[in-house]
Amino acid sequence: MAIVVQKFGGTSVADAEKIRRAAGRALKAHRQGHQVVVVASARGKQTDQLIADALELNPKPPRRELDQLLSTGEQQTVSLMAMALDAMGQKAISFTGAQIRMITDDAHTRARIQSIDADRIRQRLDEGYIVIVAGFQGVDEKGNVTTLGRGGSDTSAVALAAALKAQVCEIYTDVDGIYTTDPRIFPAAVKMDRISYDEILELASLGAGVMHGRSIEFGKKYDVPIHVRSSLNDSPGTLITHEVPQMEGILVSGATLQKELAKITLVGVDNKPGNAARIFAHLATARVIVNDIIQTEVSPEKANLSFTVAKGDLDDACTALEGIREEVGCESLFVRDDIAEISVVGVGMRSHYGVADKLFRALAEAEVNIDSITTSEIRISCIVDIQQGTTALQAVCNAFELDKPATQRKP
Amino acid sequence: MAIVVQKFGGTSVADAEKIRRAAGRALKAHRQGHQVVVVASARGKQTDQLIADALELNPKPPRRELDQLLSTGEQQTVSLMAMALDAMGQKAISFTGAQIRMITDDAHTRARIQSIDADRIRQRLDEGYIVIVAGFQGVDEKGNVTTLGRGGSDTSAVALAAALKAQVCEIYTDVDGIYTTDPRIFPAAVKMDRISYDEILELASLGAGVMHGRSIEFGKKYDVPIHVRSSLNDSPGTLITHEVPQMEGILVSGATLQKELAKITLVGVDNKPGNAARIFAHLATARVIVNDIIQTEVSPEKANLSFTVAKGDLDDACTALEGIREEVGCESLFVRDDIAEISVVGVGMRSHYGVADKLFRALAEAEVNIDSITTSEIRISCIVDIQQGTTALQAVCNAFELDKPATQRKP
Repeated sequence: MAIVVQKFGGTSVADAEKIRRAAGRALKAHRQGHQVVVVASARGKQTDQLIADALELNPKPPRRELDQLLSTGEQQTVSLMAMALDAMGQKAISFTGAQIRMITDDAHTRARIQSIDADRIRQRLDEGYIVIVAGFQGVDEKGNVTTLGRGGSDTSAVALAAALKAQVCEIYTDVDGIYTTDPRIFPAAVKMDRISYDEILELASLGAGVMHGRSIEFGKKYDVPIHVRSSLNDSPGTLITHEVPQMEGILVSGATLQKELAKITLVGVDNKPGNAARIFAHLATARVIVNDIIQTEVSPEKANLSFTVAKGDLDDACTALEGIREEVGCESLFVRDDIAEISVVGVGMRSHYGVADKLFRALAEAEVNIDSITTSEIRISCIVDIQQGTTALQAVCNAFELDKPATQRKP
Repeated sequence: MAIVVQKFGGTSVADAEKIRRAAGRALKAHRQGHQVVVVASARGKQTDQLIADALELNPKPPRRELDQLLSTGEQQTVSLMAMALDAMGQKAISFTGAQIRMITDDAHTRARIQSIDADRIRQRLDEGYIVIVAGFQGVDEKGNVTTLGRGGSDTSAVALAAALKAQVCEIYTDVDGIYTTDPRIFPAAVKMDRISYDEILELASLGAGVMHGRSIEFGKKYDVPIHVRSSLNDSPGTLITHEVPQMEGILVSGATLQKELAKITLVGVDNKPGNAARIFAHLATARVIVNDIIQTEVSPEKANLSFTVAKGDLDDACTALEGIREEVGCESLFVRDDIAEISVVGVGMRSHYGVADKLFRALAEAEVNIDSITTSEIRISCIVDIQQGTTALQAVCNAFELDKPATQRKP
């Protein structure tokens, strides 16, 4: 019998009615002949409330104790969902991370999963139970409760699906799938039926924000099909899978616009080995996350080095750079916080030429000026003026026909 | 170094300020050179809220899942208290029942403790930590969370004190000790400095309600001194210990009045072997708890059988008795729900005569009519008309000088 893992986020289990609805969905899959494992998050704003309770007592709560506290949110949801299923006449049992030996390292509040005791779950499934597992949490070798950090419940779900060799990991959310782009900017955006792990990873890191990158990486590593779908209806959502041949035919799967960026250029850095390393080590020490890096020689002795950071990190980045400027011979810092980045992503780029050409032409026709360009194997990004961000994304979406299902686009 | 266990109930940890105060008390004991283990209950009305959440989803929630749910309340308190101590600069660590292997049987919602892994706690104490343990909860051999039922946190605390061979188990509450009688009825009642396990067991079962009988039994079995005291001040409360010689000099330690009782008399039961057993087996099946039983022969063939039950159980008891009446030849049922029971308790009764005499004289002088009398080795109880309950208790308290410390009473 095929195993299905269903994950419900906080908004999908926020109150009794929603817990009942989620339970009903699990029951339906069970009655269709599947073995069902549910992974649930804490109810609604529970985690926020617990964090507020903690901060009232300690502005810097010890991470071990924070994990001990926060893990109760998911534990409450899973026991309540088991009760809901019992009321529907269905055998159900809830487990905490500790109870299924979801072993992690001891990096509290951002632990990494190391192993799962799938046998305990399998035994209950074979006995006809629906098994409900608390997401977001694990336990270290010594029995201390750990949590997995942002997007942790997704990671729990995908990891369980991998350990159980589940047919699919369904992620229930309040949107009905992943769209070709943000419908608030390009209202004609369409839902994607299918997308590859690599593409969604590029889209996630660019801020599409549907799922956290870690759970996708897990899915990719263990080849778990992930179905992102709505908790409000039965329509199929978007299936995230390994790459299949027909994906190659799609030039661009999706496009994104990212506004919360700033760009820093170090002008006239001495063109000597080790200078780039010095600069980025300095930024890493200041905990600044650096995105797209561009370096170009401007003379035999000098180079310009640009990169983007989140706007919130800009001050920290500049402070850190002031401490290294002299050492690397940087003549001046040039900062832009009035930029946006548009990106197009698609595995088809690997085998098709003309994508960059089409992109630049679309931007030119929309009279959008390009500040700079970076690319990866399946992505092209352009930095533009923030005022032109929306125009740029719309122009690109029209050019790549992101208002149509992939199969109906011109080749 | 002496180990002290401190238990704080729900009202003593209801909000951040109260958690901080409880933490401060633990810290004070630590600074006085003790090794401190704190046992905490769920905050304020948290458990009630969780039960309401459960009932909204399932009128009869499975007990395993109810335990999984309710145990989160204590888990939240202990992590928050560890954070509060950390904020005071004190090393502290919280443990759930599962984490210290508080092993119980699998009788969910009313589990019994079987063993505790004291080593994990001792190790942390030796490292200078204050250890905070979630009360009310344990874990069965298979790792399912269990709870200990009414008064469970007291039981956790006393059991931990026993396992750790603690010097004392301090029970912090909102009263400043145990009184000779209910001060609402006899305002001159005084706090007892010391009382024996046996006496408090008699007083608890009679409704004094300070601590649950199970935790006292545990304390008696493992000889753990229990100090019931106020969480609001530093005054010493009442110490519950094994019997010491000077207790023998005290005729009566305390007196109680119980109003929520009813008395059932089976008139003219056939005086044959096995009839009493049949009747009480029938009541047990109906889950009716029977108190003081009196049987008297009224003829060679017939006997009258009386007993008391909680008023809430009266209907169930009568229904059950209707089903057995004919079989035991009972002529009629006589029910009184307008009664009260007054009791005096004291280990001194064992070695002193005249207690009963003094009691009956006091009631006679107050013109209180006695319906019936029962006794145990250290207790005398009289059933009186409910209208006369208060008068009766006051008369008895005056007769036995329960307005004075035990040492100042006339011999």
